[in-house]
Amino acid sequence: MSKGVVLLSGGMDSAVTAWIAKRECEELSALTFKYGQRHQKEISCALQLGLILGIKRHKVLDLPLKDIGGSSLLGEGDIPTEGLSKGIPSTWVPQRNSIFLAFAFGWAEVLGYDTIYIGVNSVDYSGYPDCRPEFISDIEIALNRASKRWVENKKFTSIKAPVMQMRKVEEIRLGMELGVPFADTWSCYVGGEKACGLCDSCRLRLEAFKEVGVKDPVEYEKEV
Amino acid sequence: MSKGVVLLSGGMDSAVTAWIAKRECEELSALTFKYGQRHQKEISCALQLGLILGIKRHKVLDLPLKDIGGSSLLGEGDIPTEGLSKGIPSTWVPQRNSIFLAFAFGWAEVLGYDTIYIGVNSVDYSGYPDCRPEFISDIEIALNRASKRWVENKKFTSIKAPVMQMRKVEEIRLGMELGVPFADTWSCYVGGEKACGLCDSCRLRLEAFKEVGVKDPVEYEKEV
Repeated sequence: MSKGVVLLSGGMDSAVTAWIAKRECEELSALTFKYGQRHQKEISCALQLGLILGIKRHKVLDLPLKDIGGSSLLGEGDIPTEGLSKGIPSTWVPQRNSIFLAFAFGWAEVLGYDTIYIGVNSVDYSGYPDCRPEFISDIEIALNRASKRWVENKKFTSIKAPVMQMRKVEEIRLGMELGVPFADTWSCYVGGEKACGLCDSCRLRLEAFKEVGVKDPVEYEKEV
Repeated sequence: MSKGVVLLSGGMDSAVTAWIAKRECEELSALTFKYGQRHQKEISCALQLGLILGIKRHKVLDLPLKDIGGSSLLGEGDIPTEGLSKGIPSTWVPQRNSIFLAFAFGWAEVLGYDTIYIGVNSVDYSGYPDCRPEFISDIEIALNRASKRWVENKKFTSIKAPVMQMRKVEEIRLGMELGVPFADTWSCYVGGEKACGLCDSCRLRLEAFKEVGVKDPVEYEKEV
């Protein structure tokens, strides 16, 4: 069995990923980032999910991504609510997953772990470049090149992205089987009390729950 | 001409790199990190160097690398002073350059820049994996995969490491030609008032200055 670090944002994709990782790992720790995202509610969801799942160690780290900027998710302009459009939307945060994965690799090296889990999805998604298979496989190689485990002992650290090629409906079905508490996950980008129901993230989630035929346990301001 | 972000630590390698970059770029900005390193003195050197060189924008960002740990440079155990040994030394900070480069790529995307400069050296160095050519070329590809410039417009962002394959003596000679103010650079790992003269970083630097036949303008506690 593996020992793994899971990147746990508090969203649905990372929650399902964490539940999958828990089955595969004899020891699982989680890393969550507070990076200036509007939807800070996802951080308390991540901590809650970690407790429910029985995570060994859970770290929440502050990252100065807001100082870099370039994203409506960091407060520059409004979150789009008109529905998914072509191209990379304004909610894109440059190099977010590269930074998250590099931190996870560093921590895995310190803990003596061998696997990183990330909940990227490249099927029902907003078109972010850092959620795609070609990025994941290239960064996996690059980060191994900078890893003591690899360079000194030829031990490879894997990046697993188990929901990357699933449709959201498959994710929800699998999550239900595994007992993922979807009520404790948070996807909305806007940062309100209730989920907005209109941002890309809410739309993708609501559509998928509808197709599965189950009510999303999270409360919405509006359901289109 | 290029527009570049230079990773400026305040050390000798990054200073020479910044002076090279300045010749090649019509616009140059710098990124410096405060990451819990013992030798915080390098940060004020970096700012000073940026002012002398005439950097367009200079950001100093805080990174929680100490929360990840795993390095004597972050305060875990003493800095080795016995001379360079085989293998990766305890001063190694896991994934430091991966994280720095990912931030630089993100910022370059926001600024509309095309080049990242990093002062890694893989000849007279401590054996850190993330200073080697194979790491630099692999991370360059991976970070482009996660870049809007590349994915939307097929514009490649380059990582240039102009001193990577130079001996330290060549670096010093070139730096002298370019007018690098070596008195304003800082290499010592220990974090004292004067440079210790005994850590790997001091030894590599002192030896190189000796071979060039010039006195290092930085003050040392001890010169072996």
